[in-house]
Amino acid sequence: MAKKTETSKRLSRDELNDRDRRTLRHLLALADDVVKAAETGRDPAIDIPSRTLSNVRYNKSKRFIEMGAAKNRRQLFNLNQAKSYMQTILVASGAEKLISQGKTTSLRGMYYLLKHTIEGAREETFSDQEESDSVIEDLEVAIEVLREELHLYAKNAGAMVGQITLIDSGDTIDCTRMGSGGYSIPSIVEPEVVQFKKCDAEFVLHVEKDTVWRRFNEDKFWRKHNCILTHGGGQPPRGVRRLLYRLHNELKLPVYCLLDNDPWGYYIYSVIKQGSINLAYESKRMAIPDARYLGLRSKDFVECELSDSVKISLNDTDRKRARQIMEYPWFAHKKPWQKEIKQLLDNGFKLEVEALISKDISYVTEEYTPQRLREGDWLD
Amino acid sequence: MAKKTETSKRLSRDELNDRDRRTLRHLLALADDVVKAAETGRDPAIDIPSRTLSNVRYNKSKRFIEMGAAKNRRQLFNLNQAKSYMQTILVASGAEKLISQGKTTSLRGMYYLLKHTIEGAREETFSDQEESDSVIEDLEVAIEVLREELHLYAKNAGAMVGQITLIDSGDTIDCTRMGSGGYSIPSIVEPEVVQFKKCDAEFVLHVEKDTVWRRFNEDKFWRKHNCILTHGGGQPPRGVRRLLYRLHNELKLPVYCLLDNDPWGYYIYSVIKQGSINLAYESKRMAIPDARYLGLRSKDFVECELSDSVKISLNDTDRKRARQIMEYPWFAHKKPWQKEIKQLLDNGFKLEVEALISKDISYVTEEYTPQRLREGDWLD
Repeated sequence: MAKKTETSKRLSRDELNDRDRRTLRHLLALADDVVKAAETGRDPAIDIPSRTLSNVRYNKSKRFIEMGAAKNRRQLFNLNQAKSYMQTILVASGAEKLISQGKTTSLRGMYYLLKHTIEGAREETFSDQEESDSVIEDLEVAIEVLREELHLYAKNAGAMVGQITLIDSGDTIDCTRMGSGGYSIPSIVEPEVVQFKKCDAEFVLHVEKDTVWRRFNEDKFWRKHNCILTHGGGQPPRGVRRLLYRLHNELKLPVYCLLDNDPWGYYIYSVIKQGSINLAYESKRMAIPDARYLGLRSKDFVECELSDSVKISLNDTDRKRARQIMEYPWFAHKKPWQKEIKQLLDNGFKLEVEALISKDISYVTEEYTPQRLREGDWLD
Repeated sequence: MAKKTETSKRLSRDELNDRDRRTLRHLLALADDVVKAAETGRDPAIDIPSRTLSNVRYNKSKRFIEMGAAKNRRQLFNLNQAKSYMQTILVASGAEKLISQGKTTSLRGMYYLLKHTIEGAREETFSDQEESDSVIEDLEVAIEVLREELHLYAKNAGAMVGQITLIDSGDTIDCTRMGSGGYSIPSIVEPEVVQFKKCDAEFVLHVEKDTVWRRFNEDKFWRKHNCILTHGGGQPPRGVRRLLYRLHNELKLPVYCLLDNDPWGYYIYSVIKQGSINLAYESKRMAIPDARYLGLRSKDFVECELSDSVKISLNDTDRKRARQIMEYPWFAHKKPWQKEIKQLLDNGFKLEVEALISKDISYVTEEYTPQRLREGDWLD
């Protein structure tokens, strides 16, 4: 078999898009700092914003979670920090390589790309993928770019269908004609990759799970109600959140969330709305403070006259999580949310969206959701 | 909120497709048997082919795993069997309802559809989803239909891109123009749902993981090599296996598999090729005895001149699994396979496809795979 070859060509500056040029500028600035430090006799160092709970806060006026100003300095000439300093520079050079060649890879791919035994030593650059993943997150916050802008993607999860036509990597995607599987939402949905071409939808309905999404798709809900239908396979990955954000902000579409009546459903809504603690530095590009919670609600067991068979008892973890979520600053001062979560605890059981099928296969698409939308019956 | 309503209409016989009519016939025959038994004074009973390891065997002439003839009788008037008898009839009636309304649902949806407290008793029809899932599998083997033909689907997993145009639920899907995410392979790909319209591809390349698939898609491998590119998100779900089967048998396309060099990769290949023990009754619709194993191979560490950094040590489970797979009847008599697995054990390490990125980002698409295809260097 052939020896190691560098078959991949670097793109010229003109072949790069604006965003890639911007990311490259940030990466090169990092390298320039090393040179500058050397020239002025200072120790090379990188300042990494601290990704701890204590450095995260809820911004009341912006209505989302954001990072504070705390930073950790990572120095080359410090025995405790030298390795992580070099790992950070290594990840930056890997990202530079990907962008310059116009290629993308997975977190695992990046790990393999950078993993090697350091010459003249027995030290490995990274001992496992966890280590490189963490350094990638450091780099994201240090130079304020999304992982996707470093040309790193996660697994596709989530699908979209409905009254919108978009361009993805040059291909025109008419989301009214995507068969039973829908448009698979990629993890990179930045405007350079995905452009909105035409949109007749009036709102976005985001559901938690693939299985519920299929019910809505099969019943052509999006056609009858002139909307876009998305799901995120549970907790929506970044690509789905970023796409919802863009649909909401660029196309001015309201976003309604149909999630399970349990702490996990509340949490998914909370992340879509206010961002997450882990990804606080990305809230400004992902959080949708005006997203609405359509259901399921704690009142639904009685209102929809459901049978006892569909109840799922709350366990201790559920109760604990529910109480924590009640105290989130964006729920704490909202009476309807306090009432909602209190009633969940009083009920003592949770409900999945699928439970509505016990009334009728299409009850959720033909009665529940249309009625809630018509009556403006949601939480926000 | 509205009361329980039966909003869903039943389709007329003419509105059903041939396959649905056939499935309905089987379901109704089951119901007729009950009536007949009553009329002739016999105990109503259903014979369910036994889904145990002892009732599965490798058919050498067909070259796949199939079920034997052993059956278990499930009787209504037998205290130990009455509940499972009634559950079987209940699942059959749920499937009949779905098919008659032209709707599909998930396994979880079916569970909710059928779960209720039996009138006049405190007994629940199903205590958990595991119970209904198992009865669904019973019904599949009893009346010889695929779960998908009962209108039950699993989560979508797997994607396809390349030189093929198909019709999915009436929508034309040109798989050369599906953006970065590709066509999301649905779990129901029977000819009534998915039709092949036009195919210019010369072969199918099936890769294990989403992340590897993306590398091939990004490098437009399918365009350069005139093929179809699929992945199954690890162990391919039924929809993906069934689609590969149809591509292979209806369009006469050879299927090449690019999987990790580890027991799990071998096992995935084995399932694609010979079927699985769990789903032995579906082998005849899914197994592809002529599928080829392109790599990764145990010889690749040396042949591709990989570095020690990419080795992942075999653990005890790996070793045990490898030895089991060596003894599978379809590998046991094949010298190249014995050599392959023995070398894995001798190496003492496994290799992921992603490891090839350590040579060059596109090494796998531009050198490894084309060379193997050119030289006919694969196992079968």
